[in-house]
Amino acid sequence: MLLEHGTKLVMIGDSITDCGRKHPVGEGLFDALGHGYVSLVNALLASGYPDYRIRVVNMGIGGNTVRDLQERWQSDVLELEPDWVSVMIGINDVWRQFDQPLMRESHVMIKEYEVTLRELVERTLPHVKGLILLSPFYIESNRQDAMRSMMDEYGDVVRRIAEDNNCLFVDTQAAFDSALKHVYSASIALDRVHPSQTGHMIIARALLRALEFDYVRVI
Amino acid sequence: MLLEHGTKLVMIGDSITDCGRKHPVGEGLFDALGHGYVSLVNALLASGYPDYRIRVVNMGIGGNTVRDLQERWQSDVLELEPDWVSVMIGINDVWRQFDQPLMRESHVMIKEYEVTLRELVERTLPHVKGLILLSPFYIESNRQDAMRSMMDEYGDVVRRIAEDNNCLFVDTQAAFDSALKHVYSASIALDRVHPSQTGHMIIARALLRALEFDYVRVI
Amino acid sequence: MLLEHGTKLVMIGDSITDCGRKHPVGEGLFDALGHGYVSLVNALLASGYPDYRIRVVNMGIGGNTVRDLQERWQSDVLELEPDWVSVMIGINDVWRQFDQPLMRESHVMIKEYEVTLRELVERTLPHVKGLILLSPFYIESNRQDAMRSMMDEYGDVVRRIAEDNNCLFVDTQAAFDSALKHVYSASIALDRVHPSQTGHMIIARALLRALEFDYVRVI
Amino acid sequence: MLLEHGTKLVMIGDSITDCGRKHPVGEGLFDALGHGYVSLVNALLASGYPDYRIRVVNMGIGGNTVRDLQERWQSDVLELEPDWVSVMIGINDVWRQFDQPLMRESHVMIKEYEVTLRELVERTLPHVKGLILLSPFYIESNRQDAMRSMMDEYGDVVRRIAEDNNCLFVDTQAAFDSALKHVYSASIALDRVHPSQTGHMIIARALLRALEFDYVRVI
Amino acid sequence: MLLEHGTKLVMIGDSITDCGRKHPVGEGLFDALGHGYVSLVNALLASGYPDYRIRVVNMGIGGNTVRDLQERWQSDVLELEPDWVSVMIGINDVWRQFDQPLMRESHVMIKEYEVTLRELVERTLPHVKGLILLSPFYIESNRQDAMRSMMDEYGDVVRRIAEDNNCLFVDTQAAFDSALKHVYSASIALDRVHPSQTGHMIIARALLRALEFDYVRVI
Amino acid sequence: MLLEHGTKLVMIGDSITDCGRKHPVGEGLFDALGHGYVSLVNALLASGYPDYRIRVVNMGIGGNTVRDLQERWQSDVLELEPDWVSVMIGINDVWRQFDQPLMRESHVMIKEYEVTLRELVERTLPHVKGLILLSPFYIESNRQDAMRSMMDEYGDVVRRIAEDNNCLFVDTQAAFDSALKHVYSASIALDRVHPSQTGHMIIARALLRALEFDYVRVI
Amino acid sequence: MLLEHGTKLVMIGDSITDCGRKHPVGEGLFDALGHGYVSLVNALLASGYPDYRIRVVNMGIGGNTVRDLQERWQSDVLELEPDWVSVMIGINDVWRQFDQPLMRESHVMIKEYEVTLRELVERTLPHVKGLILLSPFYIESNRQDAMRSMMDEYGDVVRRIAEDNNCLFVDTQAAFDSALKHVYSASIALDRVHPSQTGHMIIARALLRALEFDYVRVI
Amino acid sequence: MLLEHGTKLVMIGDSITDCGRKHPVGEGLFDALGHGYVSLVNALLASGYPDYRIRVVNMGIGGNTVRDLQERWQSDVLELEPDWVSVMIGINDVWRQFDQPLMRESHVMIKEYEVTLRELVERTLPHVKGLILLSPFYIESNRQDAMRSMMDEYGDVVRRIAEDNNCLFVDTQAAFDSALKHVYSASIALDRVHPSQTGHMIIARALLRALEFDYVRVI
Repeated sequence: MLLEHGTKLVMIGDSITDCGRKHPVGEGLFDALGHGYVSLVNALLASGYPDYRIRVVNMGIGGNTVRDLQERWQSDVLELEPDWVSVMIGINDVWRQFDQPLMRESHVMIKEYEVTLRELVERTLPHVKGLILLSPFYIESNRQDAMRSMMDEYGDVVRRIAEDNNCLFVDTQAAFDSALKHVYSASIALDRVHPSQTGHMIIARALLRALEFDYVRVI
Repeated sequence: MLLEHGTKLVMIGDSITDCGRKHPVGEGLFDALGHGYVSLVNALLASGYPDYRIRVVNMGIGGNTVRDLQERWQSDVLELEPDWVSVMIGINDVWRQFDQPLMRESHVMIKEYEVTLRELVERTLPHVKGLILLSPFYIESNRQDAMRSMMDEYGDVVRRIAEDNNCLFVDTQAAFDSALKHVYSASIALDRVHPSQTGHMIIARALLRALEFDYVRVI
Repeated sequence: MLLEHGTKLVMIGDSITDCGRKHPVGEGLFDALGHGYVSLVNALLASGYPDYRIRVVNMGIGGNTVRDLQERWQSDVLELEPDWVSVMIGINDVWRQFDQPLMRESHVMIKEYEVTLRELVERTLPHVKGLILLSPFYIESNRQDAMRSMMDEYGDVVRRIAEDNNCLFVDTQAAFDSALKHVYSASIALDRVHPSQTGHMIIARALLRALEFDYVRVI
Repeated sequence: MLLEHGTKLVMIGDSITDCGRKHPVGEGLFDALGHGYVSLVNALLASGYPDYRIRVVNMGIGGNTVRDLQERWQSDVLELEPDWVSVMIGINDVWRQFDQPLMRESHVMIKEYEVTLRELVERTLPHVKGLILLSPFYIESNRQDAMRSMMDEYGDVVRRIAEDNNCLFVDTQAAFDSALKHVYSASIALDRVHPSQTGHMIIARALLRALEFDYVRVI
Repeated sequence: MLLEHGTKLVMIGDSITDCGRKHPVGEGLFDALGHGYVSLVNALLASGYPDYRIRVVNMGIGGNTVRDLQERWQSDVLELEPDWVSVMIGINDVWRQFDQPLMRESHVMIKEYEVTLRELVERTLPHVKGLILLSPFYIESNRQDAMRSMMDEYGDVVRRIAEDNNCLFVDTQAAFDSALKHVYSASIALDRVHPSQTGHMIIARALLRALEFDYVRVI
Repeated sequence: MLLEHGTKLVMIGDSITDCGRKHPVGEGLFDALGHGYVSLVNALLASGYPDYRIRVVNMGIGGNTVRDLQERWQSDVLELEPDWVSVMIGINDVWRQFDQPLMRESHVMIKEYEVTLRELVERTLPHVKGLILLSPFYIESNRQDAMRSMMDEYGDVVRRIAEDNNCLFVDTQAAFDSALKHVYSASIALDRVHPSQTGHMIIARALLRALEFDYVRVI
Repeated sequence: MLLEHGTKLVMIGDSITDCGRKHPVGEGLFDALGHGYVSLVNALLASGYPDYRIRVVNMGIGGNTVRDLQERWQSDVLELEPDWVSVMIGINDVWRQFDQPLMRESHVMIKEYEVTLRELVERTLPHVKGLILLSPFYIESNRQDAMRSMMDEYGDVVRRIAEDNNCLFVDTQAAFDSALKHVYSASIALDRVHPSQTGHMIIARALLRALEFDYVRVI
Repeated sequence: MLLEHGTKLVMIGDSITDCGRKHPVGEGLFDALGHGYVSLVNALLASGYPDYRIRVVNMGIGGNTVRDLQERWQSDVLELEPDWVSVMIGINDVWRQFDQPLMRESHVMIKEYEVTLRELVERTLPHVKGLILLSPFYIESNRQDAMRSMMDEYGDVVRRIAEDNNCLFVDTQAAFDSALKHVYSASIALDRVHPSQTGHMIIARALLRALEFDYVRVI
């Protein structure tokens, strides 16, 4: 597995990451990690790799765009001195263009998205052992759907930034696309954004695969 | 994997099973399965084996002993017409002898426990394709501890009943014992009974292993 | 306008109709009609046709399918002795097939849907002056979407029943399709089902048009 | 219609305008506009003129008099950079003289009312494309009633200010007077001030008429 | 004073009487009498005539019409074996005709009102020492107002029944009319029906005057 | 009556005065005056002397001693520019010596009590038309009771200060003593301090008598 | 000590006994015994005599008089098959005569009190090893106080019944009288009835002394 | 007894001490001392030694370690000017090492624990008449248990500091060990840390014994 013994992993993002975590810092006794994919990643690692003593911290905040991450990056990521960092951002950057189309100041266009995310990645890399970029996703099987199509473009930005900086890339959209071959989107997420426990497990599994876990240990 | 396509799996037990499920029947839209090992088993199956379309129903009720299960077995198991059934019971049967020692009428002694559980198993087997018996557990590493020691005896009863009836047996106690080599019990369950998300994942993984899942599919 | 002076109009359906109405009967002082299209229809009629003294009663119940309507039709429609009745049902009949695909007993297939709705219509017609059938809808612009496509079939059933019985037919799906030419579905309904106030106004306007209202009076 | 494509319309006033809007700014996802006439105007425009993409912002605050508007005009109107502004104020200016007659410091007499409102209008006109002044109202049919009579005088002030500045004037009092020919005031507003959904629709319709909407489009 | 030492006085009516009393019987420790005119009458009698030991029981229920009183008269008046009874009913009988004009089954027309109230009075008189009839009221100074005018007719019915049966009659409408010479109705009751503490004191004083209290004792 | 037309009367004290009033200033629409003797005084004056237009403001705060009054006298009395002021203070000054005898810093001894109250009176007199001093009280008939006996001494201080400064003095203790000839203390106040509505009426009546009201007007 | 090893002690009474216990039976996990003298007796016995394994059950109900005990004696005492029973009743029997003097049907006069309590004692004695009668009390030092004086008479009844039947008698009034030599009643109970934790300890200690506990063991 | 007449005793610690006390200062009317051992000590002293007038103040705060005590020692102990101080700290210092092993910054290692506690003791001794150090405890009978074993080491530190400074030492661990000879830990504390009322009584008794109380007085 790519994570070393004693790794501190800070996971940041929007409401998918937050999922009811403890504030201001998502760590500590029970329920501090929320009940989404962060908690599942922690539970899978802690039960499969108990000897690795990996420390997971959830720093997601609901409604965040990459613009919000930039504002709190210093306090919420760098000052926590992580060994590894994971970032999943972009859903709100896109969604606001579709659910409140007239409030243009709430939209983060793809140019700003790329510049900001790239800056965060480059600022962070010198201080960490590894950085995981998860694509944003939209649990909609029709790739011609306007919002899905734009989400794919934002996902491509994440992939390019990951490649340019040798980060791990987790294609959450591809993971959900596999699931959508078997079930309709509404059974995973009523609004195509906030997943059920099954949907969060899909993210967690994709992330662990990217970390090259040992199948037998994790299950 | 042992479960076939289209299987309906009813999971019954006490508060570890219940874990906030929907009442009277733990099935339906989001959160209906609670947030414990039942939900994790469902999420792991639904994400790893989406094509199997396995239907999980949570029928746990907090505080139940095997005596309570017997009273509601007809309505809460048999009438749901499951293909498979899982049962994890016995923690309260033992715990009451230790946390309220003077209320003897609340204690389910090992003899009654065995007779009752055996009767439930035998009554059910003709109607189902498979039955999974999970041992009760106590997340305490000292096997000489009085309550741990009694829990082990109840667990042995479950193992014997499983063997006598060719049921699957899941040794949850052994699974927790492995974890306790690495961490102290309080980090999994403050009261040594109600587990954290990591503890529930330990149960879920043990159960899936008993079902002979395919590693690559589940993670 | 088709409604006569003094008409009593009972409007029945699911959560789109209910929308927070008073129970058991959705009539009386403020907020008794809920805050969805029923309330808007009432407000538009009461402000535009105050002299008509049209009495609107909301009998929607969240989660209902046509099977539920059948069970309560006698008490919730016929015994209220309406002059006109409106029915919008079918969304849950379809949705359950997509959001909880494994719980087959909760699905109302198209055959049962048609037979049941037709029976309700035929049973009611001898007792009323008019009957309005609103199609169910799915606020999704992609007609190849599996759930949209099935919803269109259920909508066709409604249209046929309306035609066969000389009922008014309100094509709510067509009304939403017009809106979707200008905005993305998420700005009307996050889950493509429960509309914003704008979405409810779209339903209300379609219904009033079917009633051949006088433009100048209503606005 | 007088509003152009892409117009941003800020609507300010007292509790009739506020009606449960989101604070500090009444815009965003569902329910942010409250559930009064502002929300109805938005729903009628968004459903009738979806191609116009008109952006409505609700800045009402319950209990406000024109004195309160003056204090927050810079931050709550001008800094939002609206294209159009609507103002409905004066009910509390008058009401306080009747419901708490001894607290004279809470009364805004007609002179102060006129001077303040006129100043707000003149300060705003250079920055906007249009300004809509709605009269305050009292849902009481007896024009000799002391409070109705004073409200009419305040309404006349609004009309004069509108005429002097070429603003649109919406005579909400006249709209309610029409309704009162058919129903008693208590069926629209128990306290003759806070209207039912029907009463809010009366305001919304009067406002849209002043904006010279196209009948066929709006309904 | 007309009430004798040791009198038990049961006071029945609608929400003006109820005013938050204890249910099912409005008697007992603190707050059991509610906080309206019943509590004030009790406080004035208990502080002014402590030696009389008069026992007051509040049996008002919000929303009641005379039709509702009739249904519960046996259990809520006669079975309590009062020495004296006071009744104030009729506001809702009239109000429903104005605030929900289309729900005709909720209207108690003047004929039914008179017949029912007269029957209650006649049935009660043989069992009590005295009966006090309070007129219903509407805190509106304009006697041509439609609802005021109808309320006056219902009040005349009460007066006639009182005269025909030698009951005490309390003209609450006249008492409020005196107050309205000095203040506007909104300062006593925002909806012209539910009075402030001052309004309840006006009722209490009118009732005590009818009972021929001794000025010096009561204040 | 001693109060003139247009008088503004500020009433200050502890929890007996406060009684659920609106904060920070106990004036305005319904319930702003609380539900104790202040509200009763206001209701009796407003219903009996409506033409006097007397404005009552409640500035009581629960738990206050004279030490607390001194701290807030400037803002809570003088800056409100009253014509008349009433003060009832001292119960907590005494009570704390009996219910928390060991917390000596919470006791206000009689010397400090007298000096502080005298200072407040002298500071206020030049600015008002009249000042009413109500004695503190203890609803206990046994004058040898330790707390009653001390309360009487504090009451004597109030009487002396009133006499020395020509203030009105209201002997609330004497008023309660009269009542206690007829009933036991527990029927007026369970803790002998916080009165029932009847107890508050006893205070209100004593206060009005001191103001030389006209019997016929007040009832 | 008088209680033998393995004793089951049922303690019944009014709100002083109840004190927030679990209903319907005051036994089980944490807080089931409430937080009054019953819980203290249990804690002193369980910590001082752990080897005796004494089982305490709290069956108090707030507001009860001896009349209420009689109604539930069969189900709430006898059917629990206690070895010992304690009874503290009578406070409400007396208090109601003082706090609601006019509601005579709520008063339990001394004759009925004695007959009823004596009947309960005689009915119970054949079935138990021991019976403890605690006097009712009133935390008022003045023995001439009307309610204290009557409470003493009721206490004498309890003493006589205890003597006549060889029951243990606990003079709680005497215990409180000792305390009142040092502190004022308000520091133990604001209403002279419901004690602070210190007051409950006074009852618990008196009860343990009657049971002839061993000083060194209990503390 | 070691405490003199008039002693002020400040008791500080973590959640075992706090137990629902009033904040910011745990003193005053009912419930201000919480419902744990502090309240029991106070109740036993106040009922057994009422003439000593000992004043107890609870300054515990849940979750505190000795590091937290140090930060608030000046304001929460010294500035209260106690005569005696009791300290029970260390449970969280140890527990965090076991329940959140990866958050090392939350662990207070034994060296820091000793240095900090010693500093607090030495800083305090010149200002007080006596200082009571209670050992931290873990209600687990197996002394080889990892957390119990570490707790014992922390307890030894407390004992040494007490001996070096002539403070009273209360061995709460020994007191619980005696109880565990008779019952299993779960009947005293589900998480082996937060005791039942019986467990708090065990602490209270141990503390009183250290203070050399007089048996006959305390019970």
